[in-house]
Amino acid sequence: MSHYYRLVVSCPDQVGIVARVSSFIAQQGGSITEASQHSDLQTGRFFMRYEIQADSLGMSAETLRHAFEPIAAEFTMEWSLVDTQQRRRVVLMVSRESHCLVDLLYRWQAGELDCDIVSVISNHEDMRSIAEWYGIPYHHVPVDPDNKQASFAAVQEHIDKARADCVVLARYMQILPPALCQRYAGQVINIHHSFLPSFAGAKPYHQAFERGVKLIGATCHYVTEELDAGPIIEQDIHRVSHCHTPTDLVRFGRDVEKAVLARGLRWHLEDRVLIHGNKTVVFS
Amino acid sequence: MSHYYRLVVSCPDQVGIVARVSSFIAQQGGSITEASQHSDLQTGRFFMRYEIQADSLGMSAETLRHAFEPIAAEFTMEWSLVDTQQRRRVVLMVSRESHCLVDLLYRWQAGELDCDIVSVISNHEDMRSIAEWYGIPYHHVPVDPDNKQASFAAVQEHIDKARADCVVLARYMQILPPALCQRYAGQVINIHHSFLPSFAGAKPYHQAFERGVKLIGATCHYVTEELDAGPIIEQDIHRVSHCHTPTDLVRFGRDVEKAVLARGLRWHLEDRVLIHGNKTVVFS
Amino acid sequence: MSHYYRLVVSCPDQVGIVARVSSFIAQQGGSITEASQHSDLQTGRFFMRYEIQADSLGMSAETLRHAFEPIAAEFTMEWSLVDTQQRRRVVLMVSRESHCLVDLLYRWQAGELDCDIVSVISNHEDMRSIAEWYGIPYHHVPVDPDNKQASFAAVQEHIDKARADCVVLARYMQILPPALCQRYAGQVINIHHSFLPSFAGAKPYHQAFERGVKLIGATCHYVTEELDAGPIIEQDIHRVSHCHTPTDLVRFGRDVEKAVLARGLRWHLEDRVLIHGNKTVVFS
Amino acid sequence: MSHYYRLVVSCPDQVGIVARVSSFIAQQGGSITEASQHSDLQTGRFFMRYEIQADSLGMSAETLRHAFEPIAAEFTMEWSLVDTQQRRRVVLMVSRESHCLVDLLYRWQAGELDCDIVSVISNHEDMRSIAEWYGIPYHHVPVDPDNKQASFAAVQEHIDKARADCVVLARYMQILPPALCQRYAGQVINIHHSFLPSFAGAKPYHQAFERGVKLIGATCHYVTEELDAGPIIEQDIHRVSHCHTPTDLVRFGRDVEKAVLARGLRWHLEDRVLIHGNKTVVFS
Repeated sequence: MSHYYRLVVSCPDQVGIVARVSSFIAQQGGSITEASQHSDLQTGRFFMRYEIQADSLGMSAETLRHAFEPIAAEFTMEWSLVDTQQRRRVVLMVSRESHCLVDLLYRWQAGELDCDIVSVISNHEDMRSIAEWYGIPYHHVPVDPDNKQASFAAVQEHIDKARADCVVLARYMQILPPALCQRYAGQVINIHHSFLPSFAGAKPYHQAFERGVKLIGATCHYVTEELDAGPIIEQDIHRVSHCHTPTDLVRFGRDVEKAVLARGLRWHLEDRVLIHGNKTVVFS
Repeated sequence: MSHYYRLVVSCPDQVGIVARVSSFIAQQGGSITEASQHSDLQTGRFFMRYEIQADSLGMSAETLRHAFEPIAAEFTMEWSLVDTQQRRRVVLMVSRESHCLVDLLYRWQAGELDCDIVSVISNHEDMRSIAEWYGIPYHHVPVDPDNKQASFAAVQEHIDKARADCVVLARYMQILPPALCQRYAGQVINIHHSFLPSFAGAKPYHQAFERGVKLIGATCHYVTEELDAGPIIEQDIHRVSHCHTPTDLVRFGRDVEKAVLARGLRWHLEDRVLIHGNKTVVFS
Repeated sequence: MSHYYRLVVSCPDQVGIVARVSSFIAQQGGSITEASQHSDLQTGRFFMRYEIQADSLGMSAETLRHAFEPIAAEFTMEWSLVDTQQRRRVVLMVSRESHCLVDLLYRWQAGELDCDIVSVISNHEDMRSIAEWYGIPYHHVPVDPDNKQASFAAVQEHIDKARADCVVLARYMQILPPALCQRYAGQVINIHHSFLPSFAGAKPYHQAFERGVKLIGATCHYVTEELDAGPIIEQDIHRVSHCHTPTDLVRFGRDVEKAVLARGLRWHLEDRVLIHGNKTVVFS
Repeated sequence: MSHYYRLVVSCPDQVGIVARVSSFIAQQGGSITEASQHSDLQTGRFFMRYEIQADSLGMSAETLRHAFEPIAAEFTMEWSLVDTQQRRRVVLMVSRESHCLVDLLYRWQAGELDCDIVSVISNHEDMRSIAEWYGIPYHHVPVDPDNKQASFAAVQEHIDKARADCVVLARYMQILPPALCQRYAGQVINIHHSFLPSFAGAKPYHQAFERGVKLIGATCHYVTEELDAGPIIEQDIHRVSHCHTPTDLVRFGRDVEKAVLARGLRWHLEDRVLIHGNKTVVFS
């Protein structure tokens, strides 16, 4: 993997932002390999993402951050400068359905996901064997329906101890408590097994079957306190017909879920997803 | 166009239906060019559609219908025998947005829709010129918000006089009254400019934009008394991103709507769509 | 899994085939859960596939076969009657790229592929660990470039000993010798990493990149003596742009290859694919 | 329509291009509403496209061009500055198949194509009526197989007199002579009715049918002297099966062709397509 710094910015739009930022990078000798901008004309907000070859700059990310601070302040930026050598620490959470977990582990091993998967947390034991085959520590944290508070305290402790930058709900069929959603706001990614906002809630494929839709879908989104309503990162669909039973829909759904979650996570890890209110800008 | 009889059947499933029907056709010397069946295992209902070369039978549709009646009675069939030389009579209804109307007229002239388009009814004058260029009579029936009853009485009179077999709401932005929905049950096809059941109701593309979805869609369905809730015939989607404004979504939507409505109507005209409760079996 | 008999037939088209076959099934009390037919009007050949509930018949597949023979003879049928309790025996062949193998093993374990995977044969050792995690015997048969004959003799011996009904080239980067292609005609399935007939041969993603195409694809086909020219079972594509490097194309390609091979193999195992000259009829 | 200047640049990549260009724009007070860049790491070439609100600049395009010249020279740029109030002049060429022509005329009238369609040239009379309904002058220039030179001299004269910026071969079934290809290099857009490079040449849908492919496609590309081998702008596909006849493939093909040509032309007219050797960068 090459070594990059990624500068990700959002701020109120005005004339001269790109000029100011790109001149700053050029003055340091920075070679930009990928640049994306977006001006939201309705809200007047500006978004940008630069990928800069680290060795063209001859300074650490820390030094670059320090040098950039005045510009950030001038334009009231929300910003981050990511050093790709600091690999993200990702925790995967799963219940009993394996397809998303197995897919992510495979892609991670194949080098498609630039991160460290530091642990798998599950309310069941089922996935221990495959997680451990991939060399990932597995934490079984049962969710006690009568004392969810204690269970999620244990979950939070695991995530904190793992120093996770990102939590992926890879078909973790529990609802995270509001406190956890807030603590890791913008860092928790969920895969919802329907084409939101259709069929939010439980058993969406059965709902879809009952309604007789001709397409089913899946949605990757950030988790917020409001169930299934967080900013959408990615969606996709699969065609179905009268021939297909709810079991077929579930099977097709697995493929869509895997694909959508993997794309959403990859984009998140590459700092391509900028949250904007309840929506996202995705520089894919 | 070749000359076919189409036998379309739905009935409670039991052993021997196909044997009985296909033996009957074979005894008459009928050459089946296309055959489709479906057994709905949940409801125990059986569906079939046969396309038979008319000249292999040497009898009129009327004679064939008469001969088939005992079989239909034996299996408690809902059925029809369509003679493709009796072209369907279709009425198109439209408001001010032209894309679906123009697309259907073009496809009809190109021979993609096997029907007679007998008239266009609109609550505006805008589409008169293009309809008349295609040689179709145009009826302007304004909808008086204070007396919708009279307006829709006029609409119904037009449809009745046109002896329409099928009414297509090609972006007709008025809600049909329940009486009209019932009178032409299973014969009125609508295009809804969203991926139902998401964003039912008004301004779906703006709803979709606000929610930040990554796909927009369109739905072709039969009209029932309950708004936007009738049996779905076909759906499709178009990918969108943060770059796209509501205007772009509307533009993409036009393309999806045209495609979905044209497919849905074609299948309906070819007797490929069988209504089953609030769902459809589509032998496409 | 329910127990079915699958009757798969192809023969010269004529009036009365369906009547004859369906009457035969009905006389035995057979309950048909899925029926598909196709008449190829250009070649005059007829294809059908029936899925019959085994316990509705009260006889063994062998008895049913015997009873059906006169009908088969009468219509000069090529046919088979498959008992779904006789699970297919599948051998997977792989080189060093793991994505298709891992995907098939996962789907097999998840119950999506109704077969026994009896062994993995590879010219490398790389995939041994994952194959054995799934409990599948692994045979390392190196291909000696100076003595391919001996290598493929060993491959053939393995396949014969495994009593394989089906061989899947899951990115097995060697060309099978003509004798092997003939011996297992219609039983060897390959995934080709391009949208055939474009970019047949080596390094298709690099060819695609050089040509500047906007879509890349993959093709699942039966292996014949003529390289990359056998009957196509399934194809699909992935969108690409100028942003994507050959490495990205390879990565996207992996996803398309996995999906297309899995669908093709599933349809083959469900007897949904009928070979017709150099083309296929797929009752999917 | 808002008034924009579009600055489109390609040049050898080096540090500081974006800084230099964006600073220049900012110094003039220019408000950038859309910005796209691409660095081709293999060829070391850089591409950019800026959309700038004209009234934020307070100078004419001509003045801006003059002011930009030193920067362009410094970085050895190929560049253009387009004033969106100077609408492109487009000539459509067609033979006897109407679908692409009718689709483009409709989209143009609906405001989807920001250009003036100044004339339709055809080797047949068939499309005169619809072209004239849209108010476009129609030139019938028969192609004499024994004197193509004279025919294409007449075509060229028409294009020259129309002061066309862009020529669209909307299913114009003649091969343009090399001289014409050169004269309008990068300005002639063709729709090829197959998924190039598969099935180049005549009757591609019949070729596709014979090969038994499961997807058919269409390709929009710039015309070069080498037939069907110019830079690809856009491609798309439609799924087909054994059920479909060559006639069906042609029908599906019409829909793909229309969609692909309309997208390609729109992007060309919005200066989103940059030619790079035999490939394109498309800032869509």
